[in-house]
Amino acid sequence: MQANNVIIDGLQYINWDKKTFEKTRDSGINAVHVTIAYWENFSEVIDNINQWNQHFREFDDLIVHALTAEDILEAKRQNKVGIVFGFQNCSPIEDSIANIETLHKLGVRIMQLSYNNQSLLATGCYEDKDSGITRFGKQAIKEMNRVGMVIDMSHSAEQSTLEAIELSERPIAITHANPSFFHDALRNKSDKVLRALGDSGGILGFSMYPFHLKNGSNCTLDEFCQMIAKTVDILSIDQVALGSDLCENWDYSKLEWMRSGRWTFSADYGEGSAKNKEWPKQPSWFKGAEDIFNVADGLRKVGFKEVDVNKVMGGNWLKFFDYSFGPVR
Amino acid sequence: MQANNVIIDGLQYINWDKKTFEKTRDSGINAVHVTIAYWENFSEVIDNINQWNQHFREFDDLIVHALTAEDILEAKRQNKVGIVFGFQNCSPIEDSIANIETLHKLGVRIMQLSYNNQSLLATGCYEDKDSGITRFGKQAIKEMNRVGMVIDMSHSAEQSTLEAIELSERPIAITHANPSFFHDALRNKSDKVLRALGDSGGILGFSMYPFHLKNGSNCTLDEFCQMIAKTVDILSIDQVALGSDLCENWDYSKLEWMRSGRWTFSADYGEGSAKNKEWPKQPSWFKGAEDIFNVADGLRKVGFKEVDVNKVMGGNWLKFFDYSFGPVR
Repeated sequence: MQANNVIIDGLQYINWDKKTFEKTRDSGINAVHVTIAYWENFSEVIDNINQWNQHFREFDDLIVHALTAEDILEAKRQNKVGIVFGFQNCSPIEDSIANIETLHKLGVRIMQLSYNNQSLLATGCYEDKDSGITRFGKQAIKEMNRVGMVIDMSHSAEQSTLEAIELSERPIAITHANPSFFHDALRNKSDKVLRALGDSGGILGFSMYPFHLKNGSNCTLDEFCQMIAKTVDILSIDQVALGSDLCENWDYSKLEWMRSGRWTFSADYGEGSAKNKEWPKQPSWFKGAEDIFNVADGLRKVGFKEVDVNKVMGGNWLKFFDYSFGPVR
Repeated sequence: MQANNVIIDGLQYINWDKKTFEKTRDSGINAVHVTIAYWENFSEVIDNINQWNQHFREFDDLIVHALTAEDILEAKRQNKVGIVFGFQNCSPIEDSIANIETLHKLGVRIMQLSYNNQSLLATGCYEDKDSGITRFGKQAIKEMNRVGMVIDMSHSAEQSTLEAIELSERPIAITHANPSFFHDALRNKSDKVLRALGDSGGILGFSMYPFHLKNGSNCTLDEFCQMIAKTVDILSIDQVALGSDLCENWDYSKLEWMRSGRWTFSADYGEGSAKNKEWPKQPSWFKGAEDIFNVADGLRKVGFKEVDVNKVMGGNWLKFFDYSFGPVR
């Protein structure tokens, strides 16, 4: 699998329409891992998949459903954006191990085992205590390994993440988070997690969501790229990538859904607070997909060689997707 | 609320039909807490409720839906069995706090926060680690307290049980389990849990399911009643009752459902084992509802006064239900 300077964003959450598809295609991004579930149950996620299938029919000059890494290369050749389906939670499988294969057949390639809260599979990063991977979680990891659905621990708690890395027979991903040494948010990852991820062949996508950045929206491109350089020393140049966590075109009610789902009557502010509850302002050097090449420039400025810039910008995701999507070849 | 020698079984799981309703009514039992969910989701539990409503129409000379303690007394006066709806798991509320009130309106009065496995609310007794009550669990306890749905921790793990007792502003129940000092099964409860339950005004229903008994199916009535006497010293004579866990009229496939739900492709044997996987044989002195008064005789033989026998046989449940079902009066 040749990387061919492919550009991949390992996580975006956008209220997609013709305009945002065009903007993304024109940005030079060749594939995006899109979120199709936060708290959705099985039938709700089917609705979301059906809506995406409508997008694929309607905007077939702009996007294509990417089921394999090869599909992403083909999307690039056709000047389209490959769309990789992912869940930020395991809620769509509900309590059924069999739903993993079914949803894989419908094109889902990445699933987080928990989203902030305790799930049936693992603990989320906002819980007080973390009991690791549950009995059902152990079965689910085996099944995800079998069918080739990537385990993503971006919003999971530390012990659960370490156990997922240990239990999974295939490398896992943290599609969108930063190291805690850069910014000590609950969502970011400790050196211990990064080392375990690195040793197991896993991959980290760096987030540009302000709550994950040092100095939030004021984080500089240089600081961001220095962080990447430092993280390469813990993982390796083949295991770091981008997962911008770009959220666009949504009103506040969507943020409330992401934070509170249906599990609480009272407001939960997640990474924000009662006084700072709105969507955060993007950093000036990454206002949206159109700025993706600023990151490549930043990487060059902090000393990355061209071959390594290409790895971070998409080459590493492409390789990871190639050996992770579908059964072991 | 006068106890009136009412007889209440705090947990049965029976494949109900005319014959079993008649047998129960003729046994002298005035009310039964019946299980209408193990792993069922919301819509599946609605099907079960609809089926019960059909039973209530069809067998209105034998049974009645009991929503209050008063309904149980009225059932006794009419020589019918009051049926109290309960869930052994929180699966029917799915991920929605609002479903608690909705299901209470449909007559559900008791809900376990977890069944053997980790749930969205609490840890089950068969998990390796127990992280206690989750973020969603804390909200759910508040809501159950508000609407008057009893928190039942029969199949929950120790730390989760202690936290539920602590967090709940109303006394909780362990509808069907025995003390670990009697038989050290994962499902039974430590002295620490029993003391916390007692101090908080909670109640314990003693199980006659062989896996919870010393010497299993060979446990004697005297041993069982001595255990009750010893437990009275930890809780109090007003906080002990019966929760027979009588399972009747089911084939093995139902036991597989109870144990494995949809969460594993491989067989899980729960309290049994690969070599001992079938429904266990009931003890000779409690083969079914028809033997319920054997327990009263056994209690007298180990020295219980008549007034205390009445409390254990149903008076305590009646009082507990009276102040637990519905909003605080």
